Amino acid sequence: MSIYLDHAATTPLRTEVLEAMLPALTGTFGNPSSIHAAGRAARTLIDTARDRVALALNARPREIIFTGSGSEADNLALRGVVRRRAGSGGHLIISSIEHEAILETARDLRRLDFEVTELKVDAMGRVDRDVLAAALRPDTVLVSVMLANNEVGTIEPIRELAEVTHADSPAVFDTDATQALGKMKLDVEELGVDLLTVSAHKIYGPKGVGALYARHGTLLDPLITGGSQERTRRSGTENVPGVVGFGVAVQLAEAERAVEMRRQARLCAELSQRIQQGLPDAVATGSPVGERLANFCTFAFPGVEGELLLMRLDRVGICGSAGSACTSGSLAPSHVLLAMGLSPQLASAHLRLTLGRSTTQADVERAGDVICREVTALREHALRA
Amino acid sequence: MSIYLDHAATTPLRTEVLEAMLPALTGTFGNPSSIHAAGRAARTLIDTARDRVALALNARPREIIFTGSGSEADNLALRGVVRRRAGSGGHLIISSIEHEAILETARDLRRLDFEVTELKVDAMGRVDRDVLAAALRPDTVLVSVMLANNEVGTIEPIRELAEVTHADSPAVFDTDATQALGKMKLDVEELGVDLLTVSAHKIYGPKGVGALYARHGTLLDPLITGGSQERTRRSGTENVPGVVGFGVAVQLAEAERAVEMRRQARLCAELSQRIQQGLPDAVATGSPVGERLANFCTFAFPGVEGELLLMRLDRVGICGSAGSACTSGSLAPSHVLLAMGLSPQLASAHLRLTLGRSTTQADVERAGDVICREVTALREHALRA
Repeated sequence: MSIYLDHAATTPLRTEVLEAMLPALTGTFGNPSSIHAAGRAARTLIDTARDRVALALNARPREIIFTGSGSEADNLALRGVVRRRAGSGGHLIISSIEHEAILETARDLRRLDFEVTELKVDAMGRVDRDVLAAALRPDTVLVSVMLANNEVGTIEPIRELAEVTHADSPAVFDTDATQALGKMKLDVEELGVDLLTVSAHKIYGPKGVGALYARHGTLLDPLITGGSQERTRRSGTENVPGVVGFGVAVQLAEAERAVEMRRQARLCAELSQRIQQGLPDAVATGSPVGERLANFCTFAFPGVEGELLLMRLDRVGICGSAGSACTSGSLAPSHVLLAMGLSPQLASAHLRLTLGRSTTQADVERAGDVICREVTALREHALRA
Repeated sequence: MSIYLDHAATTPLRTEVLEAMLPALTGTFGNPSSIHAAGRAARTLIDTARDRVALALNARPREIIFTGSGSEADNLALRGVVRRRAGSGGHLIISSIEHEAILETARDLRRLDFEVTELKVDAMGRVDRDVLAAALRPDTVLVSVMLANNEVGTIEPIRELAEVTHADSPAVFDTDATQALGKMKLDVEELGVDLLTVSAHKIYGPKGVGALYARHGTLLDPLITGGSQERTRRSGTENVPGVVGFGVAVQLAEAERAVEMRRQARLCAELSQRIQQGLPDAVATGSPVGERLANFCTFAFPGVEGELLLMRLDRVGICGSAGSACTSGSLAPSHVLLAMGLSPQLASAHLRLTLGRSTTQADVERAGDVICREVTALREHALRA
């Protein structure tokens, strides 16, 4: 049996979620825009799911826009705000450790005469409120800082950052909460954000569904125009089974969050301890426990080629990741780790282990032992070569 | 039992498609971008599905870009071509009977200094090649004419229109084939198109998946940027089960197309005959049989309020539509029917019946009788009022 420790990349669909989706995959197949009974039944399913996602975020249902992925929601946030100010140009602020869906999108918007500031982070990957305050300008239209980083799990002080933004500028505050959903409480009122992205497949829901929370009054142009679905903010026939699955997945994740995350945190501590005992020079990356997502266990191993390590682990049935799945295959060292001040060598020796609902004590024991053995073997091999 | 005659709005998922999707919904849950075994297994599923969609269109697999809907593919075609020419402005040509995903998108692009010509159609809804030729300009960057109309089923002379476009201009030729897929042969080489949109949920595949065919060499900017999936043309974690379902749905649709469309054409003829016998003043809309999609049966009933008719039919278990599902609820008469020269009164009295795999002889007999009865009742009611 293989041990899957890559839950930040994606998660398996929960049985309960699949069961909830099946009626929408079979019986209730209507187009929610149709006015006949088959259409109305599908519309009801979407409404219920929207209520569930809104409830989890302490938002109003009409503030939830379903999309085809977290990346689409991220793009809708940035491009939607910018498009609304068509032609005028302006200034965007993002952190330097954003997911590519924010980073590449912000950079792409330079073509529309938007200047982009990429905020420095500290060695833990944290954005400082004073650094943000200094970057804000009268023409800043949007600030986007992720809630929790996808490569090291560091949690950002979003409430403070949103406060600074709203105190000093008319800018909209956006946060990518794709990794945070289901791992920590997300309350859009407490956070004080205007836009927030979530995705179903990171919380044991289906792939192909994301959502953008857009605070009432946040001016946003659509990315996809057409039949005016989602209150004209995202056209296209709704992915009814996917949306249903998202609703149930978020409801279950919230109900079990406290207990499950305590359990995963214990397993994470055990795994970290085993790795650090076996490999005393392993460098833990990201914020310390309590300031990072509880299911993230991340290390850099000096002198080890990360891709080689991953392949060796894969061969013995352990699924891990160097960083983001989305940039796997790229040989460039992670922009996140470099921004945190790691050397390119150390950044290329990174291992991200992300635990999940299925992870057991036996898994972390075996994974810890195997990782220590494989890292040691790689180093011995490098010495002989 | 209700009779579903709204297959142009959406179709039920085929059992075989669901069965093919289930392994991807349960076991093979990896992120296709992950390099470990779980990721590679998911990548293989996507590759197979891409091959299937490409085969159905006589395209190469790398020319297929999976999206979250047909609307997203339509937007990617128009916005992608236009964005590639950022800042330069230019001229777009569409037909006046396009789906909203093309129509509204083209109109929206006026904000980026693109002029839009909406080509007139004849009474059948056909675009004439000479009308297109006269509209082409040296600065025309894109022509988009749908393969078959979604409200009346009229098939457009795409091969001729693409020929005219390529002979007289450097413009890219795009076609929305959402309704046509599975109903007629779609060969991108024979058609001579550069871009072509299809969608899974119109051919008994899952909602939440579409695709854009983009001929090799067609310059296109992405709509969604980020992790560079789909060869950087559409970022975001792939909807693996949805894509798998699309692949199987298109394979089945193509295998059964000839036989099934002959069967549906016979049933359509029977239904039309019953309606015309019972309601001699019913006005058949769209092109004659042979020049329209074989599963479309569309009529306008002088003196009848279409929305009222639909509600009455719904009450007795017949699901039909006025026109496009995407604009249901809108009280404005259809832009398609108005462009074809119908009066606003007649356009508001339109009924679209679209047959499908489940439609039986008994269905069309009952539907024909009920429609004649309900139209007559509505007219009598109007006379008394």
